[in-house]
Order: sequence, then structure tokens, then C-alpha cells
Amino acid sequence: MAVRSTPAELVEAARAGDRRATARLLTALENQTADAAAIAGLVKGGDAQIIGITGSPGVGKSTLVSALIGAWREAGLRVAVLAVDPSSPFTGGAILGDRVRMADHALDAGVYIRSVATRGHLGGLAATTGAAVRLLEGLGFDVVIVETVGVGQAEVEIASLADTTLLLLAPGMGDGIQAVKAGVVEIADVYVVNKADRPGADGAVRDLRAMMSLVRREPGEWRQPICTTVASEAKGVDDLVAAIAKHHDWLAGADRLADKRRRRAAAEIRARVDAALRERYRVSEDLAEAVADGETDVASAVRRVLGDTG
Amino acid sequence: MAVRSTPAELVEAARAGDRRATARLLTALENQTADAAAIAGLVKGGDAQIIGITGSPGVGKSTLVSALIGAWREAGLRVAVLAVDPSSPFTGGAILGDRVRMADHALDAGVYIRSVATRGHLGGLAATTGAAVRLLEGLGFDVVIVETVGVGQAEVEIASLADTTLLLLAPGMGDGIQAVKAGVVEIADVYVVNKADRPGADGAVRDLRAMMSLVRREPGEWRQPICTTVASEAKGVDDLVAAIAKHHDWLAGADRLADKRRRRAAAEIRARVDAALRERYRVSEDLAEAVADGETDVASAVRRVLGDTG
Repeated sequence: MAVRSTPAELVEAARAGDRRATARLLTALENQTADAAAIAGLVKGGDAQIIGITGSPGVGKSTLVSALIGAWREAGLRVAVLAVDPSSPFTGGAILGDRVRMADHALDAGVYIRSVATRGHLGGLAATTGAAVRLLEGLGFDVVIVETVGVGQAEVEIASLADTTLLLLAPGMGDGIQAVKAGVVEIADVYVVNKADRPGADGAVRDLRAMMSLVRREPGEWRQPICTTVASEAKGVDDLVAAIAKHHDWLAGADRLADKRRRRAAAEIRARVDAALRERYRVSEDLAEAVADGETDVASAVRRVLGDTG
Repeated sequence: MAVRSTPAELVEAARAGDRRATARLLTALENQTADAAAIAGLVKGGDAQIIGITGSPGVGKSTLVSALIGAWREAGLRVAVLAVDPSSPFTGGAILGDRVRMADHALDAGVYIRSVATRGHLGGLAATTGAAVRLLEGLGFDVVIVETVGVGQAEVEIASLADTTLLLLAPGMGDGIQAVKAGVVEIADVYVVNKADRPGADGAVRDLRAMMSLVRREPGEWRQPICTTVASEAKGVDDLVAAIAKHHDWLAGADRLADKRRRRAAAEIRARVDAALRERYRVSEDLAEAVADGETDVASAVRRVLGDTG
């Protein structure tokens, strides 16, 4: 039988590097247990850099994350990673990808890695990771990495979550142009062309530069650097770490860090409010059928669900 | 000065193949103008197949769509395409991709193609395309294709919108495994390995087969076929069309088409209700700041927004 620890005991253990304690605290927050409010109160504050890493499948996100962890650990920083896998709509759970490289850090108490499922449509990234990011920050991690799979919604959300968002591309996947198409380029703070030893890397960098030259910027605005890496050999990682630090300094100088923190909280509240409202305002099968059959139009159906008489 | 047409006149013109009339009707629905209810009432019914096409950037979705249009046009069917581009969070508008191949059908009155922006987070695919799909169906189109860019949220949504969802993969992009990771494979009804003349195509098909063998299926359940195409040369397209028809027959036989139609309507109402609720229940900056500073926990903040005293 497991000994029941108080929130305060768990927080103390987690601060000292006990991963199981960290995991239990995160689980308590995720499940909104009775202890959640007490935990949130205990881990106020902290001063972590929140780094978002995004990009298409196959560009090497996990490998780069592992290399970044290595660099930050060498600098004596504690690093936490939230790896967000979209949950399967059928199994309800996260299908974990290959995290073999993460095993490099398995025995390092200064590293904490957790896979997070985004359960269903509702809430999404903000609801599932907002509280976790704040907890990890409060536990004394210096860097919290949020890694997302895929291109789309999650990328827009990650930009609202992270202080610094990295967009990872790889040559030969037509990613340069496609990233623009998806509107993802505009949300990144740092571009990374990974697998830079492969043919087409120069072209990808060129494409990115060409696209960026089209964006008009005010004086004092951040100009996204383009870093090239071979993550599997840790090449270019020091330059990337420097670019991230530079962005962080720019944010701090422009007094934007508090703003980012507030936006993270707002996104989290929003996501949870939306989930609660969905429970309250339900769409009946009969109403859906009436719209499908053309007996009612959508606007009337919406008014009925909202309880409006208009 | 444009002559003002009545909804009935526009519907009549659109049914006769007038694209400008179709565009004006779609715009009226998108903007929820005063005519929207009248239009919805005029175009009840219809019997279109709704085909969702999804896949990572670069796999050749637009090219395949163009080839499918050609095949269905040869069979005498009227085909409409809604090409969904995630909108840029900064420009607010859709950044249109290369639709050059679509120009093949520019002069064919039996084909209607429209790019749709998904505006912001709210509503998403269902809100923006639900009414459009129903309108196009009511105007007499036999096939309505909904093409989405990217992997993620949109793919889960498209499965709830479409009768038949195609997942497009291409060899050499690590897509096989990555698609599983993203939980996308499970939502597809037909897999298509495009660019099948390239190295790695056999491997992609093999990977898909291996993955599918892991899924347990009840007797009578649909078994997803794997089609191979070279869309740029229209190779394999006839077999793909046959596979889509087979899935449609299976749906009809299992009495699932009405169910799909009702779900589409439900998703659309849901999306619009959510958007209205977001306007009503706002999250203030002060509240977000209180959570960010640890003065309030998220659960209390959520209760305050909802107006709950609990």
C-alpha cells in the first residue's frame, strides 16, 4: 500500500529531483483532484523559459529535444519536457512515438520527461499543458520544453503557450513552402533546418529567407534567425541555444515575459471554461436531425441550444 | 451596380451551373446574412457523396483531387471541392496554395472549387464547411470533396464531416509510422499511397498493412483498402474511385449515411454554439493575471467566469 503524501511533502520531494513525486503532482493537476488548488498554491512563481518545438512528422523533433537537453544540462539547468501526442479518437490514449533517444537522459535527476495526451477536441494544448507548465516552473525547472506532433491547430496554440517557439523543418520534404501554406511560419520565433547534412538543406534555408523577406517588420521587432542543425550529431545545437537565449533576452527587454505568462493562464482558463460550457449546452440528436433534414436552419438550432427566444 | 437577385433566383441559377450564383449563396451562408435561412430552406435535400481528403503537406492532395474530379466528370457527375486552408493567425485570411492543376477544370460548369478559410480556433472545419457542404449537396452536386491541409485536429474533424475519408501518404516521408503516431490512420476509410512510382512506395504499403493487422475488427466492419496512385499521371485513380464507391455502398447497406448526415449537422450546431458562448463568457486580463501570479487557482477562475458561486 502506498503511503499517502501531503501536497507539501510531494512538492518538497519534487523540488529535490524526485521524479515520482513530480509525476504524482502532475497527475493530480491533470485530474483536478481535491489537492489541485493546494498544489497550485504551493508552487507559485518560478522563472522557467518555456520553449515550444513544432514541425511536421519526421523532421527530427525528439532528436533535437534530446540534443537541447544535453546542452542545457551542461550549462547546469534543470530541464522538463512535455511531449504532446494527439490522442487517438478511438483509444482515448496517447500513442507514444519512439522516445529511444530520450533514454539518454533517463538517469539524470535534472531532467523530467512526460508524454501528454490531448484528450479529444476540447481544451486542447492549453488545458492539458497550462497547469503542467506552471507546476514544472514552480518546481524549479529552468527550461520547460513543449514538443508537439503535427502541423496545424497545435502549432497556433503552442505559440500562445511558449515564450519561444521553434519551427523545425527538414530538407526535401517540401516543408518550406508548405509551412507558409499552413500559416505556421508566422508563429515561430526561431526557424531550425534540421538534417542540414542532407541535400536540399541550402535550398530550404534560401526558401525561408525569401519568405521572410516578404514580411514587413517594425523597427525593434524580433527578426527570426534561421539555425541549421544535425540533431543526431548535436551539430549546430550550441548556436541554436544561443539564438533561443537571444530571443529570451529580447522578450525580457521588451517586458514581454509577463505578458506571455498571462496569456498562458488566459488560454488555460478559456479552454476549461469552454469544456464546462459544452457540458451545459448540449446539442440533441433530434435537433441535429431537424437541421440535416432541412426542417430547421442552423441559426435557429443554435438559438434553441442557447435558450434564446430571439 | 450589381442587380440584387432573390435567394430563389440565385438557387435556380446555381442549379443550372452558374458559379457566381453558387459563390454568392456560399458567401451568404458563411456570413449568416438575412437570406441565410431562406437559402437553407430552398436547398433542402440532395444526395451527394461527401469525400474527405487529408494528409501531410507535400503528399499530392491537390493533384489527386484534380485527378478524381476528372474521373467523376467522365462518369457524368457534378463535383464540388472545398479546399480548407488553415488561416494565418496574423493575416486572418487564407494563404492559398498552388492550385494550378485545378485550372484544368476552370472551364467546366460541372465543377465548382472554393477555398475556405477556417477563421481562428473557433468553430473550425465544422462551422465553416458544414453549411457549405449542405448547400452544395442541395444544389445538385453529386460529389463534394473537402480537402484539408496538415495533420492533426482537422483530420479528426474531417472524419466527422465526410462520408468517406481518404488518408493520403507518400513514400519516403516517414509518413507510415508518423500517421499512426498522430492517431490519423484510425479515422481513414481508404488509404492512398500516392507517388507510387517513387522508391519506398512498396515499403509504405507494407507498413500500412502491418499496422492494420494490429487493429481488431468485428465481422461486418469496414476493412480499409490501400490504393496506390500516381496522381500526376492519373494512374490508379479508377481503382481509387471504385474503392470509394465500395465504401459508399457499405455505408448505405449498413444504413449509416443518414447517421453521417446527422453527425455533420450536430458538429456544425456545436461549433456555432461554442462560438456564441465564447462571446458571452469572457476571460478578463485581470483574472488571467491572478492565475499567472498564483493568487487564484485555475478551477476558481473557471468558476468565476461561469458565474458559479460553488
